[in-house]
Amino acid sequence: MESIMIYVPAILAVVGLLFMAIKRSWVLKQDPGDGKMKEISEYIYEGALAFLKAEYKLLTFFVIGASIALAAITFLPGATTHLSIVIAFIFGAVFSALAGNMGMKIATKTNVRTTQAARTSLPQALKISFGGGTVMGLGVAGLAVLGLTAFFIFFFHFFMNGQWVEGIYDGETRTANELMTVLLETLAGFSLGAESIALFARVGGGIYTKAADVGADLVGKVEAGIPEDDPRNPATIADNVGDNVGDVAGMGADLFGSYVATVLAAMVLGNYVIKDMGGSISDAFGGIGPILLPMAIAGVGIIISIIGTMLVKIKNNDAKEAQVQGALNVGNWVSIGLIAVACYFLVTWMLPETMKMKFYGEGYHEISSMRVFYATLVGLFVGAVISSVTEYYTGLGKKPILAIVQKSSTGAGTNIIAGLATGMVSTFPTVLLFASAIWASYAFAGFYGVALAASAMMATTAMQLAIDAFGPISDNAGGIAEMSELPKEVRQRTDILDSVGNTTAATGKGFAIASAALTSLALFAAYVTFTGIDGINIFKAPVLAMLFVGGMIPVVFSALAMNSVGKAAMDMVYEVRRQFREIPGIMEGTGKPEYAKCVDISTKAALREMMLPGILTIGFPILIVVIGKLVYADNNQLIAEMLGGYMAGVTVSGVLWAVFQNNAGGAWDNAKKSFEAGVMINGEMTYKGSDAHKAAVTGDTVGDPFKDTSGPSMNILIKLTCLIGLVIAPILGGHEAKPVIDQLEGVEIVLDETTPAPEVKQSTKEIRIESIKDADGKVKATVTTVTDSAEAVEVFEGTEAEVAAKLEAYKKK
Amino acid sequence: MESIMIYVPAILAVVGLLFMAIKRSWVLKQDPGDGKMKEISEYIYEGALAFLKAEYKLLTFFVIGASIALAAITFLPGATTHLSIVIAFIFGAVFSALAGNMGMKIATKTNVRTTQAARTSLPQALKISFGGGTVMGLGVAGLAVLGLTAFFIFFFHFFMNGQWVEGIYDGETRTANELMTVLLETLAGFSLGAESIALFARVGGGIYTKAADVGADLVGKVEAGIPEDDPRNPATIADNVGDNVGDVAGMGADLFGSYVATVLAAMVLGNYVIKDMGGSISDAFGGIGPILLPMAIAGVGIIISIIGTMLVKIKNNDAKEAQVQGALNVGNWVSIGLIAVACYFLVTWMLPETMKMKFYGEGYHEISSMRVFYATLVGLFVGAVISSVTEYYTGLGKKPILAIVQKSSTGAGTNIIAGLATGMVSTFPTVLLFASAIWASYAFAGFYGVALAASAMMATTAMQLAIDAFGPISDNAGGIAEMSELPKEVRQRTDILDSVGNTTAATGKGFAIASAALTSLALFAAYVTFTGIDGINIFKAPVLAMLFVGGMIPVVFSALAMNSVGKAAMDMVYEVRRQFREIPGIMEGTGKPEYAKCVDISTKAALREMMLPGILTIGFPILIVVIGKLVYADNNQLIAEMLGGYMAGVTVSGVLWAVFQNNAGGAWDNAKKSFEAGVMINGEMTYKGSDAHKAAVTGDTVGDPFKDTSGPSMNILIKLTCLIGLVIAPILGGHEAKPVIDQLEGVEIVLDETTPAPEVKQSTKEIRIESIKDADGKVKATVTTVTDSAEAVEVFEGTEAEVAAKLEAYKKK
Repeated sequence: MESIMIYVPAILAVVGLLFMAIKRSWVLKQDPGDGKMKEISEYIYEGALAFLKAEYKLLTFFVIGASIALAAITFLPGATTHLSIVIAFIFGAVFSALAGNMGMKIATKTNVRTTQAARTSLPQALKISFGGGTVMGLGVAGLAVLGLTAFFIFFFHFFMNGQWVEGIYDGETRTANELMTVLLETLAGFSLGAESIALFARVGGGIYTKAADVGADLVGKVEAGIPEDDPRNPATIADNVGDNVGDVAGMGADLFGSYVATVLAAMVLGNYVIKDMGGSISDAFGGIGPILLPMAIAGVGIIISIIGTMLVKIKNNDAKEAQVQGALNVGNWVSIGLIAVACYFLVTWMLPETMKMKFYGEGYHEISSMRVFYATLVGLFVGAVISSVTEYYTGLGKKPILAIVQKSSTGAGTNIIAGLATGMVSTFPTVLLFASAIWASYAFAGFYGVALAASAMMATTAMQLAIDAFGPISDNAGGIAEMSELPKEVRQRTDILDSVGNTTAATGKGFAIASAALTSLALFAAYVTFTGIDGINIFKAPVLAMLFVGGMIPVVFSALAMNSVGKAAMDMVYEVRRQFREIPGIMEGTGKPEYAKCVDISTKAALREMMLPGILTIGFPILIVVIGKLVYADNNQLIAEMLGGYMAGVTVSGVLWAVFQNNAGGAWDNAKKSFEAGVMINGEMTYKGSDAHKAAVTGDTVGDPFKDTSGPSMNILIKLTCLIGLVIAPILGGHEAKPVIDQLEGVEIVLDETTPAPEVKQSTKEIRIESIKDADGKVKATVTTVTDSAEAVEVFEGTEAEVAAKLEAYKKK
Repeated sequence: MESIMIYVPAILAVVGLLFMAIKRSWVLKQDPGDGKMKEISEYIYEGALAFLKAEYKLLTFFVIGASIALAAITFLPGATTHLSIVIAFIFGAVFSALAGNMGMKIATKTNVRTTQAARTSLPQALKISFGGGTVMGLGVAGLAVLGLTAFFIFFFHFFMNGQWVEGIYDGETRTANELMTVLLETLAGFSLGAESIALFARVGGGIYTKAADVGADLVGKVEAGIPEDDPRNPATIADNVGDNVGDVAGMGADLFGSYVATVLAAMVLGNYVIKDMGGSISDAFGGIGPILLPMAIAGVGIIISIIGTMLVKIKNNDAKEAQVQGALNVGNWVSIGLIAVACYFLVTWMLPETMKMKFYGEGYHEISSMRVFYATLVGLFVGAVISSVTEYYTGLGKKPILAIVQKSSTGAGTNIIAGLATGMVSTFPTVLLFASAIWASYAFAGFYGVALAASAMMATTAMQLAIDAFGPISDNAGGIAEMSELPKEVRQRTDILDSVGNTTAATGKGFAIASAALTSLALFAAYVTFTGIDGINIFKAPVLAMLFVGGMIPVVFSALAMNSVGKAAMDMVYEVRRQFREIPGIMEGTGKPEYAKCVDISTKAALREMMLPGILTIGFPILIVVIGKLVYADNNQLIAEMLGGYMAGVTVSGVLWAVFQNNAGGAWDNAKKSFEAGVMINGEMTYKGSDAHKAAVTGDTVGDPFKDTSGPSMNILIKLTCLIGLVIAPILGGHEAKPVIDQLEGVEIVLDETTPAPEVKQSTKEIRIESIKDADGKVKATVTTVTDSAEAVEVFEGTEAEVAAKLEAYKKK
């Protein structure tokens, strides 16, 4: 019987979206200020919209092309994926775009309202800016859960009539497990659509924001000597648009993708828990409790995030950074705590008390539902601790930052070495944390545990995004205050918010990479189960070679992204120089800069430059399968392992380079910022404008593409790689390893006629045939096909002649 | 019968050493010049010796400690390694130190002789400097081959009485294969000793040379405004010592280690080829042809290298860089070509015409000896091509360098981004080359093919080292010319040699990392065979976690090395400043700088700072085994896989970071050098002293530790990690997977009494028991224990009661 629980997550998502709508209308009702403020905000809004429009136009072609490719995949021999994966893919893309669009719109509306509020009240400014962030967070999380669960409900009825029973698919009778696998393979299309859009949003947004930033700074600040956010600078609007395009839309799309992929992967592994338990369980949830659980956690997470966001407030108009940070922390910690409580009840309620799970190489284990709960705690722990680790390596006043500041006194070279080394060293605790989390959550509850750890961590996505989006909104608010020449105390208030926003941006990146890492592992596990291989053996040279290739991809991807920023920034520099040269009265404030031209240049450059990294990401997994098919036409298992090796390489290397680049970039940034308040170097107070500060500025220039373009792109790279693998998986393996009959070719079958003892024939193909003749002359032949990943047995009985004939027929089959 | 071939490689090594001795006495007979030159050369010689002495003193403690640890390992339960591994280890360490000592001594004697020759003749200067390099190259290669082969001969008689027959070891009868495995496990001690010394030589040398270099430059060039190599600079001798310590001794120890490890790994895999062929083959080499082959290639390689070095000469006193480079290329290419020819004859002569090899997951293949030859060609191809790839990314006048030069015009920030991106992009062709080589050589002849590819590539080691060592000798020769205030044309002649030396240094690093990568893979394969596991499945979470941890180690190691350079350089800066302040008349040339103090500081700093990276490298694999034992006490297979995952992570990530750092560093260096001849930036010729040049100098500062300290250290890190794994391996697994009897506990044994058909019982522990009763009432029970890596079968026969009793006894065992 169908359980009502299947609808609950979708309903919770709708509740979240309703709350978002209310919050949205409240934010929009706030005073957007007067003339100039409104005008500038309008420019930013339009610039952001122009980028989105151009991006979506381009992506439409991509989505059409990818849809055709996906459709083609479903027709490949051996593929079990249903054609409706294309619909899921398109919806995934559209939902992701919708979430990005919604978030960016509200962010660009909230900024000016924050500025206006900051004229009188810091608490109100925080309320509005965080309110905008909340709208963004709930919008993304709500759409993610709604889209995924709605498709699940639809497919559950479409493929399985809403019941856990066997049925016919593709002309064959399939177990409920197999049908659910087909369902989830098709549902993966939704995740793939979302992640594809995220790739372009993250990379394109990252290139956009840094091109505008660097271009505006190089010509405006350095060459023309005008301050940051000066309205005379033609690139200043593009710079502010960039904050929204990169930090709001890019981060939103990133977490949207993680959210969907994590839940999906957990569902896939839930299906395998049921399989390990014999193919069906009886519970109050129509026998699909382990599959519904991740969705339930996601749905409840939305409600808990709403509660969390409500707790973020300050009362004192003279509050400093610490109080604002404190308010955010209260919201965050309470959400995490509530998720833990919710996980306890959901896990113990929805899962069988004990489950049988297969641990590769260890056989079956009995796993209690409490162990699954412990796994979710591991995920929450990682989500919480990763922020502290990130903050230690990038936070103002912390030891690593102080060391970089000291090294700035001997020039840019030593500053940069110190920053690089800081980013590199920061991989130590981060990777140990991730590795322990993988190990611990696996030890508790297998890969299902790993996936649920990720799910629990991601349950606070709405809250995390609210905190993240609040940063660029405050940054923009400060920019508007500057550009509109508002009184100094307004800027001071927004600066407090901005400064906290910088910290949350860094820790947000930590959360994003942690989520990407766990998500990828869950996807990786799901991939293995989809292909039917039960392992990826790197002692096979082709697999090892692909591990190398996979490891290289994030490095090259990062280089491409960095070079793209350089190229795009040069385009911007030339345009700004042209405007300064050609527009009369621009420096005196009488001539009006052509903001739109700069927005246009950033837009075009971002879209042009995101192509190559995109092709690299999407093309390589496909290339590996194609080459694999050319070389090992009939050995899908090996090709699947090769692709798996590639995925592992990308994930391991991608996580390392993400952490390295994000933290080095963040460290350089804050080392530079340290000079604003003055720092003690060799016993002397040193300030902005000193040689040491200039060295720190150079370090920050290097760090900019690290932390805002290439670093954050790694998340998408690793997730998308694993998702593409997951979508390709059904071609590479049935759901069950079947005897590789082709291999029987050329194997001589010996039926020993004289003794009842088995005659074992070991062929070079690892096929063992044992035949026994009993006293009545009846022969029983057992053909065991041992592949690296599975062992399949076929038995033939009858008279000797009959068995020989059957074997011959089997050989030919 | 014992084959004479076992002695041939050792004899060839002795021939190489004799030739070296002749060459050495020729070099030493050359005119060392007059007063000041001799004095400076003496300082450098003594400084280098002082470092070696201090280093060896420290390393003596290390060797004693490690010997005790190794001895302890041989007493661990399950370990089959013989106590004599300690002797092999000590000899490996001593031989490696001896080679380094010999190389450094001749290098520091050759430099001044090169300077003297350059007063009159460039051809003669080349002859002498390259002669010194040849001594170094032959010394290293000769000692490596002699040491390894001598120990092999000794152990072959000690363990096997010089015959391929079964025998008793450790109280048990063992097959010849098993005895040979014990032998090779013990021989691994020699390799471990060599590589341990290499770690400290490479890391310590790298820190020494850069600390002295940066220290001398920062105070001398920048603060005091005196030119490079000025005798008034107290750190100038340390700087010149550094070239020898880092580039000569460090590189020598690195390649010594690679050479030994490669040959060893190929021997281990050769032993497995014999095993795959049924445990014995009959050939003209006492049945050990596949094991002797790699030694034979190494031995012949020495003779071929001698021929190659003889071809390196120029005739024209007005020759330019191109001719000198051409002369080196002739020698190099002829050696590679001759090695290919030699491999053809050796392979077809020493191997059976066809061999049976097991390909994991594919079963047994028939491999012809020609296919093994093709594998060696793959290795030679990689060795040759990697140089071109390296040269493209780091060579003067090449596109990537020109791009960095252009980016220097907008400041140090853009220069550094461009350099980083160049290093990162350079991983693309490099990794694809390595991955293809792994795949191809494996496809040709399994992991034996991979190991022989590495062996063939390493056969030219003596030639490669001669070319490598020639660089720093010429660099030193120029320094001596400058410090002795010799006429300008002398410096011009040495500059030609130095400039070529810079290119060969970069390509030499490419060769070193290629050799390290292939060596590590061969060791990795040997590791798997030693532990008896037949795969490393990264779909087991603990293994995957270790893959992550392994990937992180090279990043953190690099950061530690970079920070060490920073700290050591600061020590040097303070000392040089002190001398300038406290020694009267030092700037006027009347006061004598205390060179020895600076040498001492570099020495101490290098030795102090190499500790932490050393502990990281050696400690982590041991830590993993200890933690593994604590968690999975009885699952050695899983622990072995975890350690294997760690090794793979270190290798993949280490190769990436080596290529990235070496090439980025090389690119920055040559981008800076481009300004010496002048470069065209935005249509304007730009020279030394311009802002763009200053930006390029900053880039070079960042690149210095990259290319001379952390980058080259990666080679040793990955090789040593795999070697430690190899030495630990015997503890983690027998040589044969045996049924895990403990697992039978709790398994109910069902003996079906009525039918002759097998009763299959599938337990959660993956133990299958099949019992058959024939017409006479005789029962045959087959217990199959399937673990992830192996399948073991035990058969019990007799009456029903007898079998039941036997099974009970078996369960209890």
